[in-house]
Amino acid sequence: MKMKQLFDQDTWTYTYVVYDEKTRDAAIIDSVKEQFDRDAAYIKALGLNLKYALETHVHADHITATGQLRNEFGCKVGVSEHGGTNCADIQVTDGQVFKLGEQEIKAIHTPGHTNGDVSYQIEGAVFTGDALLIRACGRTDFQQGDSGVLYESITQKLFTLPDDTVVYPGHDYDGFTSSSIGEEKALNPRLGNNKPKEEFMHIMDTMDLPKPRRIDVAVPGNLVCGLV
Amino acid sequence: MKMKQLFDQDTWTYTYVVYDEKTRDAAIIDSVKEQFDRDAAYIKALGLNLKYALETHVHADHITATGQLRNEFGCKVGVSEHGGTNCADIQVTDGQVFKLGEQEIKAIHTPGHTNGDVSYQIEGAVFTGDALLIRACGRTDFQQGDSGVLYESITQKLFTLPDDTVVYPGHDYDGFTSSSIGEEKALNPRLGNNKPKEEFMHIMDTMDLPKPRRIDVAVPGNLVCGLV
Repeated sequence: MKMKQLFDQDTWTYTYVVYDEKTRDAAIIDSVKEQFDRDAAYIKALGLNLKYALETHVHADHITATGQLRNEFGCKVGVSEHGGTNCADIQVTDGQVFKLGEQEIKAIHTPGHTNGDVSYQIEGAVFTGDALLIRACGRTDFQQGDSGVLYESITQKLFTLPDDTVVYPGHDYDGFTSSSIGEEKALNPRLGNNKPKEEFMHIMDTMDLPKPRRIDVAVPGNLVCGLV
Repeated sequence: MKMKQLFDQDTWTYTYVVYDEKTRDAAIIDSVKEQFDRDAAYIKALGLNLKYALETHVHADHITATGQLRNEFGCKVGVSEHGGTNCADIQVTDGQVFKLGEQEIKAIHTPGHTNGDVSYQIEGAVFTGDALLIRACGRTDFQQGDSGVLYESITQKLFTLPDDTVVYPGHDYDGFTSSSIGEEKALNPRLGNNKPKEEFMHIMDTMDLPKPRRIDVAVPGNLVCGLV
């Protein structure tokens, strides 16, 4: 499996294009509406057959390009079955597998940032959206977020992957582009080093963060696959 | 060899940390002075032994952190023998090899953006600085840049690497993080698809770009390894 990481500077969002080198079957994970032109041209230039436009969750900080990508490439849009979208072609379930040629993407339900987070695993790597970030994690104070649930998703699901699994997050605000399961197990200050659930929940539940400035536009926009 | 790509948003610069997993011996390529604290903490947290701080060239757009890194970690600073720096511990020559445990970094002299550009090759990847960028290349109108020389460096040296070699550039201004030799041979609009040297030189020699806004600070700063 080949992978390309793309960056949207305005929202600090990472978008990923993964593809099978032989068949050129491809998926895009967490596209950004404002980068549709860039990403469509890139996919065409690389000669890829875009089969899936997958979302890790219903984002509150940017609007997706999944609807436009479906119009352009005829791909299937996949969002968690818990995401509440009517526009998705695939209501993604835990353990669901997406085939790209001989390669597989496996969905892992990792709720807690929202109630409908999905991490996508491919050989040696996992795309964690806003569930597990680099030395951090997604906030848990809106969209049915739940700190206790997020602790279980990360410690009982993501942290059971092999230590050398590369972690590709949905964002990073310090200029880091990847981590690994082993690194986060050891170094994540919120729940690494076997920090107890109660301590994690206390950290998350007392953050008192400002409301995301785009949430009232982004969430409704993402519930219709960005076709706004 | 493990690799971490880091991003400085202010100057759109990519910094790379490469290391051997067994011995934890590491090198940093193209560090940024303003990110010294971030990068020093990162290197320590990962338990790396920083042996080398390497530069792809004497930069005109940011000041390096090599001097500070040497002070902190006792690493050797490497800059091209043509770079004109007196502060470097190693005047890097074409073909020079740097060992990180059992792994090797090989220097390839790829002048043309400046007269002292070095690309660094590790297994399956090459760090091209500003010689070869994604669908672009470095400008050739200052610091002894030469479009004809850059054409030869890219087509006769970099383009002879295996097509699946991953290209990690010194910058990208559109949110791309990597390319490959095969992609650039096919898709680089300036000199891909076997574009003749004269056409490339015409493109580069008629760009009429503004003077880089930091050049008068950055170049003198980099000639003293950023200790300004």
